[in-house]
Amino acid sequence: MRTTSVGVFKIATKGPGDVSGLMRLIEQGAIDPTSILAILGKTEGNGGVNDFTREYAVAALCNALAPKLALTPEAVEQRIAFVMSGGTEGVLSPHLTVFTRQQVETPPAGMPGKRLSIGMAQTRDFLPEELGRSAQISETASAVKAAMADAGISDATDVHFVQIKCPLLTSERVEAAAARGHKTATISAYSSMAYSRGASALGVAVALGEIASDIRDEDVLRRYDLFSKVASTSSGIELMHNVVIVLGNSGTSASEFEIAHAVMSDAIDAAAVTEALGSVGIRPGAQAKAGRELVNVFAKAEASPDGTVRGLRHTMLEDTDISSTRHARAAVGGLIAGLAGTSAVYVSGGAEHQGPAGGGPVAVIARLS
Amino acid sequence: MRTTSVGVFKIATKGPGDVSGLMRLIEQGAIDPTSILAILGKTEGNGGVNDFTREYAVAALCNALAPKLALTPEAVEQRIAFVMSGGTEGVLSPHLTVFTRQQVETPPAGMPGKRLSIGMAQTRDFLPEELGRSAQISETASAVKAAMADAGISDATDVHFVQIKCPLLTSERVEAAAARGHKTATISAYSSMAYSRGASALGVAVALGEIASDIRDEDVLRRYDLFSKVASTSSGIELMHNVVIVLGNSGTSASEFEIAHAVMSDAIDAAAVTEALGSVGIRPGAQAKAGRELVNVFAKAEASPDGTVRGLRHTMLEDTDISSTRHARAAVGGLIAGLAGTSAVYVSGGAEHQGPAGGGPVAVIARLS
Amino acid sequence: MRTTSVGVFKIATKGPGDVSGLMRLIEQGAIDPTSILAILGKTEGNGGVNDFTREYAVAALCNALAPKLALTPEAVEQRIAFVMSGGTEGVLSPHLTVFTRQQVETPPAGMPGKRLSIGMAQTRDFLPEELGRSAQISETASAVKAAMADAGISDATDVHFVQIKCPLLTSERVEAAAARGHKTATISAYSSMAYSRGASALGVAVALGEIASDIRDEDVLRRYDLFSKVASTSSGIELMHNVVIVLGNSGTSASEFEIAHAVMSDAIDAAAVTEALGSVGIRPGAQAKAGRELVNVFAKAEASPDGTVRGLRHTMLEDTDISSTRHARAAVGGLIAGLAGTSAVYVSGGAEHQGPAGGGPVAVIARLS
Amino acid sequence: MRTTSVGVFKIATKGPGDVSGLMRLIEQGAIDPTSILAILGKTEGNGGVNDFTREYAVAALCNALAPKLALTPEAVEQRIAFVMSGGTEGVLSPHLTVFTRQQVETPPAGMPGKRLSIGMAQTRDFLPEELGRSAQISETASAVKAAMADAGISDATDVHFVQIKCPLLTSERVEAAAARGHKTATISAYSSMAYSRGASALGVAVALGEIASDIRDEDVLRRYDLFSKVASTSSGIELMHNVVIVLGNSGTSASEFEIAHAVMSDAIDAAAVTEALGSVGIRPGAQAKAGRELVNVFAKAEASPDGTVRGLRHTMLEDTDISSTRHARAAVGGLIAGLAGTSAVYVSGGAEHQGPAGGGPVAVIARLS
Repeated sequence: MRTTSVGVFKIATKGPGDVSGLMRLIEQGAIDPTSILAILGKTEGNGGVNDFTREYAVAALCNALAPKLALTPEAVEQRIAFVMSGGTEGVLSPHLTVFTRQQVETPPAGMPGKRLSIGMAQTRDFLPEELGRSAQISETASAVKAAMADAGISDATDVHFVQIKCPLLTSERVEAAAARGHKTATISAYSSMAYSRGASALGVAVALGEIASDIRDEDVLRRYDLFSKVASTSSGIELMHNVVIVLGNSGTSASEFEIAHAVMSDAIDAAAVTEALGSVGIRPGAQAKAGRELVNVFAKAEASPDGTVRGLRHTMLEDTDISSTRHARAAVGGLIAGLAGTSAVYVSGGAEHQGPAGGGPVAVIARLS
Repeated sequence: MRTTSVGVFKIATKGPGDVSGLMRLIEQGAIDPTSILAILGKTEGNGGVNDFTREYAVAALCNALAPKLALTPEAVEQRIAFVMSGGTEGVLSPHLTVFTRQQVETPPAGMPGKRLSIGMAQTRDFLPEELGRSAQISETASAVKAAMADAGISDATDVHFVQIKCPLLTSERVEAAAARGHKTATISAYSSMAYSRGASALGVAVALGEIASDIRDEDVLRRYDLFSKVASTSSGIELMHNVVIVLGNSGTSASEFEIAHAVMSDAIDAAAVTEALGSVGIRPGAQAKAGRELVNVFAKAEASPDGTVRGLRHTMLEDTDISSTRHARAAVGGLIAGLAGTSAVYVSGGAEHQGPAGGGPVAVIARLS
Repeated sequence: MRTTSVGVFKIATKGPGDVSGLMRLIEQGAIDPTSILAILGKTEGNGGVNDFTREYAVAALCNALAPKLALTPEAVEQRIAFVMSGGTEGVLSPHLTVFTRQQVETPPAGMPGKRLSIGMAQTRDFLPEELGRSAQISETASAVKAAMADAGISDATDVHFVQIKCPLLTSERVEAAAARGHKTATISAYSSMAYSRGASALGVAVALGEIASDIRDEDVLRRYDLFSKVASTSSGIELMHNVVIVLGNSGTSASEFEIAHAVMSDAIDAAAVTEALGSVGIRPGAQAKAGRELVNVFAKAEASPDGTVRGLRHTMLEDTDISSTRHARAAVGGLIAGLAGTSAVYVSGGAEHQGPAGGGPVAVIARLS
Repeated sequence: MRTTSVGVFKIATKGPGDVSGLMRLIEQGAIDPTSILAILGKTEGNGGVNDFTREYAVAALCNALAPKLALTPEAVEQRIAFVMSGGTEGVLSPHLTVFTRQQVETPPAGMPGKRLSIGMAQTRDFLPEELGRSAQISETASAVKAAMADAGISDATDVHFVQIKCPLLTSERVEAAAARGHKTATISAYSSMAYSRGASALGVAVALGEIASDIRDEDVLRRYDLFSKVASTSSGIELMHNVVIVLGNSGTSASEFEIAHAVMSDAIDAAAVTEALGSVGIRPGAQAKAGRELVNVFAKAEASPDGTVRGLRHTMLEDTDISSTRHARAAVGGLIAGLAGTSAVYVSGGAEHQGPAGGGPVAVIARLS
């Protein structure tokens, strides 16, 4: 029986501190603030270690939502999953995607097919030396299963996008581990973002049965044949645990939205993007079939670690001026925006173990009317 | 009668100083060094004022070609038009495109249609204060007409790509003008690249009758409704005059190549890229029709000066860490590489007055077999 | 009679959103929140157009101070002058300098000399087309005089540092002016920061009689022989008017602090830094005389616009990867930190018309015990 | 007996390809090209993996010197040690320092003290997996001893600067090692520069008896208490072996130059710079004693790996937009240029195991007349 409904709202922002669009929808009654489960945002920082636009955006949202929820800003941050992906390189346009979930009072009759569902879970806090290693993998796998249950999804093939927010290492955290006699996976803050993203993605792959569960520490960022087709992980300085958001289709959902995904085999895989769009009834250039409307595209991008795209050399990994994650978001963002017909798409950098090496998952949500 | 033939060779490079690919083709007899007319390259610098990969590549090519042509390196630089476009952001792959031109001894019989032709011309040296102003526009227009004649093209509609190499201002050049009592269009070296590219493009538009010839100094970088649909201009520190290369189709050519173009109306105009590819028989993803093979795509990219793409805000112009030209090349490069099925495409930044504001020309060369 | 007292507190921060140090001093009773007049901060953004660490820091401070002052965060922002200078390149360490001002109940007897005094004033909001032009200059000059009066300073030679916070242009603001038929001084957001800083500094110079008052629009960023020896101006996206803070010594102050300044004639003028330190009794390496303690150094840095330092070429203005303001802050910050013996110094970028071309003012505050 | 003489020439450059200054000195007879032993340059690239200004400068110099030496450019590169340190951030001014060595025909009588001497040696080519590990350390130590012998220096305390040029890893090299079943110290090209510099510096420390010789692989970039006080190492993409240049004072030298050094304990250690200058008779601000003239300062800079300078946080290691080596060169370059009174100083980035963590060696050469 269809017991829950999930709403999806895409809201353009004028800056990382801009909450006016969301406030307007709440004031107009379009969004019930108590129904907000998660907010995924693209903010215009560098997406790296010192990208403060992410925490600034979260702080602004928590401050603005606090009176609406009769909570302190701190309690809002505990209640709602905020995933801010920094970096709107190239044409990418800063925006928020707000996911709501509500109980359905009267299940709709005659609604065909499975519909968009969302579930959440969290891991415990990690120690700095656990990041990028098997502890992070197995804890994440458990959290993914909990989030699936929360979403009312039992079949792994109904999972189309698993967004994870995960920690990174700072000089301070590396020192703290060293003081206790432990070496971290890396001493570089920037590199630690890749380790944390990679281990988190492997956790998704383990949970969904995409790979076996016996992953070793040394496989992380080395065995790129091990990956999840639906994982999307972003690391941020503001937490020490993983937050897991599962998006899929479920028979228990009465949502007017549907989700599908494909896997880009490399950064120029236009066919995969076209396939993902097509799976929910959208043709390239965003010309939708009757009764279908594109809501957003969610994708991961990375510089192919072997230094090539279809045999031709790229220069993203050797550029000391621009980090490779910025390059990759710009390029894949350009391709997806072109095919989707809109630049407000969620393209996030650092696709370690998320899709094949150099590629990544691409999921699309459409509204059915 | 078909009296000349034009060859096109795309060669991957391992670095800005890598000439091994070209040398191999010469040694194998595939390229007659005396037939080389122009070399367009994508080099892996920042594409900005201090991008020395351009002059390094030219120096390496001149040094390598000198003994093959029995000339000094300096004389090689005078003989061949070298246009190095810096910046291989995102997936873009560094490469050279070598254009050769030869007299045809025995005109082929039964060759249908117009074929690829190439012509060249140069302006006089400019004074620093002439850059970005009407003097640069009108001198460029004259040079475009001379290059068309050199290409055997009389009809402006047969011109599909006009590549121009133009100067920029340095602190030194600005000072030199000031010492003579003249103000330059800008005192910023980076901004001067835009002025020089813009004025050069307006020169192309004047020559081809795309706009009227009464352009005023203040229209440059202001009146973005004035533009050429086929101009592609790159500024570099190494010269003080404009070098003009006209690419089009001509009945006098016996080449096995063909060129066509379209105009991207904005940076995510996938339809225009698809149209340009289709005009020479290539479908998206580089699946070519029988007898057709994609050689290269030549396009210009820029951040839309009004700060938006299809009504949605982009952040390229407000980014103090990455110049907007780098952002734009990465994004448009990602789109074109995806549709062309190869990342070795020529996408150059700074499309002022080259296509509509925020868009740019896209030309495609295919080989017919 | 000594009627007011000024306090100065330097507080290290752990990030742009960190207010814990200030809150601790308030809770300990060291700072009375109602006495806070101005907060100058160095935040760790890029110091450019898209440096959101400035507005994030201000938002965090306003949110934290609001309950202490029984005001809304918006009212706190009106009450206290917040000047956040983005950019802690090189060794520079993020920190806040909090200035307090209170009435003195019992004027101290036998206090020798003039002591630190502070005064504030604001201009009206500017139109985008007024930025960088004479309107901004003359309005600023009036505000400087008002701030001097507020500080109890009548003699211009007692003014040692005038900090101004001024607006910049965004694509939106340029469009707004254009829509009303007006051209702005520049269409580049980044360049507009220089125009706004320059015109504001000229306003200081006019107010203090350092230059004549007949400055023309075209003198801004051209006539670098016109400058103030004590102006320090920072542009930010968050306001459309100028906020003026005058720091000097006054006989009406019973403060335990003293301020002095010198002028760096170029970016490597170690002698000027040593002179400024010495004027308040501090020797290089921060070895203070008995009874003297260094509190902070306030300086402006810029890349010499003629491209040289003492006849030798610098490369700051030709670097497309790092803006010249970042280069200059790093270099001058390194020199001042070395001589001051601490990296928590306030070095701000963009010294147009603030000190001679390529140089800038350097002020030092010391505590007398 | 004084059997050799060493000359030192500092030459400003207008760009990485500018050889005109050196050519002029050769044409004027001031430099005998056959006497050139080594050329140390500061070039204006980013100093990172994709800094092609280094190889461009070397190529230009080899091409220019080839006819003067009657050698091919390749043979020139074998004969002369070229060490190009990329990165002239902040005030640093691009320049070359040319070292010459000649036999003395008539040993000068009555010359007091030891004088500047120079010696060189090379290691064998390294495998990618040897970089940053004990093989690189021990091979380097042997080469340092050979270079000391070449310089006529037997006492380690007479060694004041050991410049080493060492390799880095590229994606290609990492792949090559992996194909043979070997893991490299890191898979990141940028990180590999640090590993290679660090191991090379430890090699110097071993050779000079500054540390014991039993260094383990895992000590590299971890045990920062192990360091050399005179090592300066730069990594570049263009070689796979280490080139070692020893600079010191020797009784066998009849040079008119003298060298001394000090060790900066952190990045703001003005006292150490002053001490090094003073050791050869130069006072801060480059006011030289009678008969003394500053030639150049050679120093290494790095961001303190613990994230602080004298207990205050720096932000260099967390900046994803500007690499920490660029930050550090700018800051330390600003300090040294200020104290030396000239911006044409050799400050090179990445001081791993070169001086204490966060600090680095600083050597000064003066001319005695």
